[in-house]
Amino acid sequence: MLLLHRAVVSALRQACRFRPPPSRLCIQACSTNESFQPQHPSLNFSGDNSSTRGWRIMGALLGFGTALAYHDHRCRASQESPPLYTKEEVYSHRSPETGIWVTLGCEVFDVTEFVELHPGGPSKLMLAAGGPLEPFWALYAIHNQPHVYELLTQYKIGELKPEDSAPPTLEISDPYAHDPMRHPALNVNSQRPFNAEPPPELLTENYITPNPIFFTRNHLPVPNLDPDTYRLHIVGPPGGQSLSLSLCDLYKFPKHEVTVTLQCAGNRRSEMTQVKEVRGLEWRTGAISTARWAGARLCDVLAQAGHQLSENEAHVCFEGLDSDPTGTAYGASIPLARAMDPEAEVLLAYEMNGQPLPRDHGFPVRVVVPGVVGARHVKWLGRVSVEPEESYSHWQRRDYKGFSPSVDWDTVDFDSAPSIQELPIQSAITEPRDGETIESGEVIVKGYAWSGGGRAVIRVDVSLDGGLTWHAADLDGEKQPPRKAWAWRLWQLQASVPAGQKELNIVCKAVDDSYNVQPDTVAPIWNLRGVLSNAWHRVHVHVTS
Amino acid sequence: MLLLHRAVVSALRQACRFRPPPSRLCIQACSTNESFQPQHPSLNFSGDNSSTRGWRIMGALLGFGTALAYHDHRCRASQESPPLYTKEEVYSHRSPETGIWVTLGCEVFDVTEFVELHPGGPSKLMLAAGGPLEPFWALYAIHNQPHVYELLTQYKIGELKPEDSAPPTLEISDPYAHDPMRHPALNVNSQRPFNAEPPPELLTENYITPNPIFFTRNHLPVPNLDPDTYRLHIVGPPGGQSLSLSLCDLYKFPKHEVTVTLQCAGNRRSEMTQVKEVRGLEWRTGAISTARWAGARLCDVLAQAGHQLSENEAHVCFEGLDSDPTGTAYGASIPLARAMDPEAEVLLAYEMNGQPLPRDHGFPVRVVVPGVVGARHVKWLGRVSVEPEESYSHWQRRDYKGFSPSVDWDTVDFDSAPSIQELPIQSAITEPRDGETIESGEVIVKGYAWSGGGRAVIRVDVSLDGGLTWHAADLDGEKQPPRKAWAWRLWQLQASVPAGQKELNIVCKAVDDSYNVQPDTVAPIWNLRGVLSNAWHRVHVHVTS
Repeated sequence: MLLLHRAVVSALRQACRFRPPPSRLCIQACSTNESFQPQHPSLNFSGDNSSTRGWRIMGALLGFGTALAYHDHRCRASQESPPLYTKEEVYSHRSPETGIWVTLGCEVFDVTEFVELHPGGPSKLMLAAGGPLEPFWALYAIHNQPHVYELLTQYKIGELKPEDSAPPTLEISDPYAHDPMRHPALNVNSQRPFNAEPPPELLTENYITPNPIFFTRNHLPVPNLDPDTYRLHIVGPPGGQSLSLSLCDLYKFPKHEVTVTLQCAGNRRSEMTQVKEVRGLEWRTGAISTARWAGARLCDVLAQAGHQLSENEAHVCFEGLDSDPTGTAYGASIPLARAMDPEAEVLLAYEMNGQPLPRDHGFPVRVVVPGVVGARHVKWLGRVSVEPEESYSHWQRRDYKGFSPSVDWDTVDFDSAPSIQELPIQSAITEPRDGETIESGEVIVKGYAWSGGGRAVIRVDVSLDGGLTWHAADLDGEKQPPRKAWAWRLWQLQASVPAGQKELNIVCKAVDDSYNVQPDTVAPIWNLRGVLSNAWHRVHVHVTS
Repeated sequence: MLLLHRAVVSALRQACRFRPPPSRLCIQACSTNESFQPQHPSLNFSGDNSSTRGWRIMGALLGFGTALAYHDHRCRASQESPPLYTKEEVYSHRSPETGIWVTLGCEVFDVTEFVELHPGGPSKLMLAAGGPLEPFWALYAIHNQPHVYELLTQYKIGELKPEDSAPPTLEISDPYAHDPMRHPALNVNSQRPFNAEPPPELLTENYITPNPIFFTRNHLPVPNLDPDTYRLHIVGPPGGQSLSLSLCDLYKFPKHEVTVTLQCAGNRRSEMTQVKEVRGLEWRTGAISTARWAGARLCDVLAQAGHQLSENEAHVCFEGLDSDPTGTAYGASIPLARAMDPEAEVLLAYEMNGQPLPRDHGFPVRVVVPGVVGARHVKWLGRVSVEPEESYSHWQRRDYKGFSPSVDWDTVDFDSAPSIQELPIQSAITEPRDGETIESGEVIVKGYAWSGGGRAVIRVDVSLDGGLTWHAADLDGEKQPPRKAWAWRLWQLQASVPAGQKELNIVCKAVDDSYNVQPDTVAPIWNLRGVLSNAWHRVHVHVTS
C-alpha cells in the first residue's frame, strides 16, 4: 500500500506538475454542494493538454484506489496507539443518540457533530452511518481530495481492529462504468459525473448545436434504460388516476417541436473564480447549446392525467431515473402555471435534432422548459407529480440559487432566495479566443447571445477598446414569435483594427426586448456558488504589426 | 418691438444667468422628437431655485410674445432688400409640386426640402404649409429657441409685403390654460405640457403614492372631458360591431383592482445627461409612482366587441383625447397577446386609489398595462382598435426606443429597435439625498426597486463604499402573486458608518426573479433619447465627525 501511495504521488506530480502544499488541489473543486457534483479536479492547467491527459490517464489507472492508498499510509505512519474498535462497534453508532461513526480505510471517525454541517446535507452523510465511507465516495469522487481528509481527521476517534481493517468487503463497482462514449472535441470539466462543454469556436459554428458536442451536465451516472420497458409515471390529482406511459403512449400525444437553447446556471463560472473562489464546475463559455426538440407537450400529458391550473400556487416536480446507490434521484420542479401554459411550450422531449435523445441528454425522455435554467430540464425522466411546494430535491432547494456577494458559506440561507427559473440576459465572445494573436487590418468577432423567459435578444454591442466605444453586431438566427424567443442569436462583427494597435480589449454585451442589459463587471454579481455569471464578456488579443 | 426684444434678452440674462452664445439655450431641450414634447428650457440650474423661478416668471409674463419679438427685430435689422410676397402667394405653396412655404413673423421660408427632415415628422410640418408657424409653435413651445430660428433661416426666401406682415390674425389662445391645479410639492420639469415628479423623500414615504404627488407625464394639454357625454369607442373586428361605451357602460363590466407601479421610460434621465447630452425631460429619480387602480379588464371589453386572440401577431392601439389643434391625438399600442391575457390584468381604469382618476392622470378613463412602460398607459382614452401593426403614433414609432451608445441623431434608425414595452430592473436611493451631510454613527438608506413584466424584486444590495462591499436591504411591500409582481418594493438599510469616515459613496442595485441585475455604470447604456436609465444609483454624502 505504501508503495502504491508513493506511486500515486509520483504519478500525480509528474502528470499534473503538482505543487505542494496539497491543499492546492482543492482550489476549484472543494465542495459543499459539490458533494453531489463530483468532478475531475481542475488544476488550472489552462490549455496544457499533455498534463491534463496525464492526469486523466493516471485517474483512470488508479481510480478509486487512490483514496484507500492514502489512508492506509496514514494508518501505518501513525506514531500513537489509538483506541481500537470492531466493525460491530462502529455499526452500533448510527444515530444522534448513540453517536454517528463512520470509517475510511482503517480509521474510525465520530462525525455526530459534523452531520448537520455536511455540505451535501445531513441525510446524505447518514447513508454511511455505522459503516465505510468508500462506497459513497466512489460515487461522489469530489471527496477524494486532501482537504476533505484533513477535515475528516478532526473527527478521528480511533482505528479498526487489525482483523477488521481489511479493505471493505463491499463490492465497489464503478457506477460510471456504463456511461456512454463521448466526442473527443468536448472539453471535459468532470468525468464522474460527466460534465463537458464544446470548445467556443465549435459552439458558434452552427445555430443548431450538433448532438455530439452539445454541452453535457450530469449530476449522477447515466442510467441505461430499455426503451421497451421504460415507463413514465404521471401522478394523478387527488382522487384521480395516475398514468404509466410507455414511449409508444407518449408518441400518441400531438408531437410538438421547438428550438430551445439550454444554458447551465454555472456557464462562465470560471470568470467568477478569478474574482474569488467559488464552488462548482469550472465552466467557461460553453455550458450553453441549442437544439431542435420534439415531444409531447407537458400540458397535454398533465391534462390527460386530470390536472388543471389551480388558483393556488403549485409546482410540477420531476424525478430522473439517474440515482445514487440509495435510490435518491435527481429532481427539480417548475411552477404549475408555466407547465400548464401551452404558450410556454414545456416538452416531454424524446427527440433532439431529429434523433432519439442521446443517452447523455436523457434517453429516452427528458423535460425541456424553454427559457428556463438547464437544471429544470430533468433528464431520464421517471416521474412527474403536481405538488403544493417546490421539489424537495437538493438541486431545487440547496443549489441553483443566487446570493449577494456578501453572503458566504457561514451566512448563506438557501431558503432566502428563490430557485433559479428564468435566466438573465447573457452573451459571450467565441472568436477570437482570449490571448490569441490576430492579424492587423480587420478582425472578425463572433459569439452568442440569449435571454431567459422567451425574451428576444434585440442587440449585441461589441467594443474593441474595453468598453469606451461600441459597435452593434450583426445578428443571425431563426425568426421567433414574440414572447417565445427560446433560442439564442449568433452574432458577428467585422471591424477595422485601428492602425498601430498592439492589442485589443474586446468586450460584448447584449440587450433583450425588456431592455435588460448585462452588468459591466463580475465582482458585484459574484456569489458563493458561482452561478448567473453574465457580466460583459471580455477577450484580450494581441495584434501582429 | 425692438424695445420688447431688448427687454426679453435682458430679462433672460438676469433671470437665467444666460451665457452667450445663444445656442447654450438648447443644450437639453433642442428637439427633433421633442417637437412633440415642448418643455421648460432647462438650463442646468441644478438647484439654483431663484434663477429657475425668475425664468418661469419671465416665461409667464412674456409667453408667446418672445418669438414674435425676436423675429420682428430680425426683419427690421435686415440690411438687404428681400423679395416680398403676399399672404395669398404663400398660401398657394402648400404641396411638393408648388413648393411648401411657411411664414414666421414677417419672414417667408421655402421648407420644401426640410419637410422630410422635420424631426416631428413631415405630416406635422405640413399642417402649417402655406401659412404662419405661430399657432403650432404656441403649442409646441420647444420651437421657441434660437437654434430653431437659425435652422429655419437657411430656408428664408423673402418677406411678407408690409400690409401682410402684421401679427397673425389667428387668435392664439393658450391651449394649456385649462390644465388643472397641481400640488406645490411636485418638482416641475415642464409646465407646458405639464411634467413633474414628487421629491424623492416623499416618493418612498408611502407604498401607495398619494394621487396629488403621483408623477405626471403629459405630452399635450389636459383635455377637459364631461363624464356624462364621454364615450369610449371600441372598434369591432372586421364584419363585427363597434362599441361606444359610456362610463356607466364601463362600470357594468366586472370591476378589477390591481396595484401597479408606473414608470416613465425617461426616469433618471438626468444621470444620462451627465455623461453626454440627451434629448428629453430632465427626470431625476421620481418619474415612478404606485397606485391601486380599478376598472374594467381590457380583455373583457375586447371580448364583448367580438375580438379574440389571433394566430397572427396583432396590436391593440389606443388613442387619447388629448390632441393638438389638428386633432392628432396621443397614441400608443401593446401586443394583442398581452391585452387578451386575463393574467396580464390590463385595465381600462376609472379609479386611482379609490377615487375617480384625477384629470392629470386621465379622467375619466386611462389604460393601465401592468409591468409596461408608462408611455403605453394612454390617458383620456378615446379609442381602442385592434390592428395588424403597432400604432403609427409618433410616440410608438419615433420615440420610446433604446439604442446603442454609438447611435446619434445622424445615424439613428428608429425602425431598427423595438418599442419599449416591459421595462428592465430598476432601483434608486431616495434617502439620504446626494450631497447631504449626515450624522456619524448610523445611517438609514431608503429607496425603491421595481422590474417590468411582472418580475418580482428579490433583493436589493446596498453599498456604502462605492460598490466594494454590499449589504442586503430589508424589502417592504405587498405580497404579489408569481409572475404578477406589478408593484415596486420599498427598501431600507440601517447600517453603521465606519468610525472616522468623512464621506460615503452609497450605491444600490436590485435583482429580479429572472436574476436580471442593473448595469454598473451609465455610459455604456447611454442613448440619444436618454431612456432606460437603470444603472446602479449612486449618492454621495458627507459625514459630520
